[in-house]
Amino acid sequence: MRDVVVLGAGLHRFGRFPDKSLQDLGREAIKNALDDSGVPFKDIEVAYVGRVLAGMGAGLRVVSEMGQTGIPVINIEMACGSSTSAFREAYLSVANGVYETALVVGFEKMQRGMLQISEQTSYQTVMGLAVMPATYALQATRYMADYGATPEMFAQVAVKSHRNGVLNPYAQYQKATTLEEVMASRMIADPITLLQCSPTTDGAAAVVICAAEKAAKYSASRSMTVAGWATGSGKFQSNDESEGDAEANMGEVVRLARTAFERAGIGPEDVDVTQVHDAFSPGEIFTAEGLGLVSKGEGARAVWDGRTEITGDIPINTDGGLISRGHPIGATGAAMVTEIFRQLTGEAGPRQVKDGKAKVGLIHNAGIGGMNILVFKR
Amino acid sequence: MRDVVVLGAGLHRFGRFPDKSLQDLGREAIKNALDDSGVPFKDIEVAYVGRVLAGMGAGLRVVSEMGQTGIPVINIEMACGSSTSAFREAYLSVANGVYETALVVGFEKMQRGMLQISEQTSYQTVMGLAVMPATYALQATRYMADYGATPEMFAQVAVKSHRNGVLNPYAQYQKATTLEEVMASRMIADPITLLQCSPTTDGAAAVVICAAEKAAKYSASRSMTVAGWATGSGKFQSNDESEGDAEANMGEVVRLARTAFERAGIGPEDVDVTQVHDAFSPGEIFTAEGLGLVSKGEGARAVWDGRTEITGDIPINTDGGLISRGHPIGATGAAMVTEIFRQLTGEAGPRQVKDGKAKVGLIHNAGIGGMNILVFKR
Repeated sequence: MRDVVVLGAGLHRFGRFPDKSLQDLGREAIKNALDDSGVPFKDIEVAYVGRVLAGMGAGLRVVSEMGQTGIPVINIEMACGSSTSAFREAYLSVANGVYETALVVGFEKMQRGMLQISEQTSYQTVMGLAVMPATYALQATRYMADYGATPEMFAQVAVKSHRNGVLNPYAQYQKATTLEEVMASRMIADPITLLQCSPTTDGAAAVVICAAEKAAKYSASRSMTVAGWATGSGKFQSNDESEGDAEANMGEVVRLARTAFERAGIGPEDVDVTQVHDAFSPGEIFTAEGLGLVSKGEGARAVWDGRTEITGDIPINTDGGLISRGHPIGATGAAMVTEIFRQLTGEAGPRQVKDGKAKVGLIHNAGIGGMNILVFKR
Repeated sequence: MRDVVVLGAGLHRFGRFPDKSLQDLGREAIKNALDDSGVPFKDIEVAYVGRVLAGMGAGLRVVSEMGQTGIPVINIEMACGSSTSAFREAYLSVANGVYETALVVGFEKMQRGMLQISEQTSYQTVMGLAVMPATYALQATRYMADYGATPEMFAQVAVKSHRNGVLNPYAQYQKATTLEEVMASRMIADPITLLQCSPTTDGAAAVVICAAEKAAKYSASRSMTVAGWATGSGKFQSNDESEGDAEANMGEVVRLARTAFERAGIGPEDVDVTQVHDAFSPGEIFTAEGLGLVSKGEGARAVWDGRTEITGDIPINTDGGLISRGHPIGATGAAMVTEIFRQLTGEAGPRQVKDGKAKVGLIHNAGIGGMNILVFKR
């Protein structure tokens, strides 16, 4: 497979936009990504679109806002992991020479109540486990017992995320919050309080990729290379509809991270900046451990000690993450790629890590049917 | 790219199954395909799933009925073209060495009223063009004026399709109908009557593919090779939501067929059996012309003269097609692949064309965002 580079990325601000259509959101993100990349839309050969709730054929409706060039517009749905899956399909198609350039798009207008992942009649629903926070809460409770972590350490994830969101003009929440405020917010599933949950969000994100050998054509003065990837759905103990929700399966993170790092020829110690799927605050801690960024049981302490801050040695979710930037499920993965692109190109402004010298970025995005781990190098 | 073969295919009968779940439908199709292929589920490395209405994460829910092996289960949605798009993604991933084996699945439980493809407020809706039959009817009317075709010639497509459906135990309708019955059925959009429309259908289909160089491992005594493909979304004159519905765009069929035949190194004269997207009877005629199976303006006459029958020289929709086999939109493309597999392996029984000597099969499946043309060789 040949090298593939990201040439540009763009967002529509994440937030609540009841008066805007999917086309409004997607058009702005795509235009921003195309402008950022220097690639004209007429050169785009295929579009892969992550979206979940938008309904039949939504990808074409949005992408054709740019013009009708006759390209395939392929909708990919893997719940919260949809647009890293779209990215992966686009990457593989360009890496294998099927296309020279590809557009990756993710968009969503969310509705409240999306957290219910099991059918009404399932065992999980009856037991109160059909909503994601419950699963995270049980894991967090066990983690506290095993490793001496405190509820405040989980809450600190949200403090950090909201602090980063203040620095991101595209974030849904641009307001700092104190540890006391996070702890005092409404309890959702002990120890997870409201401010530790990803909100209901509308938004769009787009990424332009290109075969590395063709990138010079676009006078690409900066880019990042796709260095490694891994995808899997995991194995689960339950046997109902929530099976395979990769968010809950940290063993799968370990396995896939190993594969992605092998493909990239590096290890977790080489990672400069990371985006993880923090749908709920414990997720960020467990995932950081699964990725090998910190040792097992040390994740909560790492957050507490400030190591995951923008100024820390293992900065995580520098754009505010799902909790503060927001989580329009079809768009989240592409937004993660966008933030890593900003960080590795040294264009992250006040969110910039490591004095603009970051060379390796890592992404973890989880959905139903697949978790994607992606490694990028400047 | 290396050669990829289809090793097996399977269906759940198409029809109306209000008491069955998607899992019930999908499990049976997947089991039939795996049994047919000789490939154990544990050897499947990825699943690509075509489905439209089934909602978030449906692919994993269905595929994990076979077991939890941790493979990615990637949902693809392109309306009526979803499962040839799933097939294409699976094919490209195996052809390019990303995986050795892949499972393609399509399933759907349809709801009435799915024909509305534009938003309520669009110009097309106001003009009565937001439903597909209207578009086909206008094209058919023009075609009759241009080429001297008659309404009976379009109706004959349905007569042929229903006759073929009688021979297919998996078809929704297994009942022959006369030309008089087709003509006398309720008018939907002149000249298209009810029996010339694809019905509301539940169903599932699955296909197992494998790198050709690994196929011997599965004692594959018969297979067919993916010889050519092309995908595009077309360019359209309108500028509303129905844009890019490839069903309506015959220029795109011509362009894509050329590409697919070039890749396969053959021409339309080499095709022994064809499956086309006959959502409405005129579609079969226009598509046969677009594919080059008959000359422009001769398609209706070819049907009338019996050339597209199982016993004809250009047999089309030998399994009953969308009109009689049924059209559960996520499953239709994979069912097309299944029928071509039966025909090219000489296992089509009473539907068998050309004394079992068919060597080349062709598929045309159209959706929103992409039309797929696939060429297979025994």
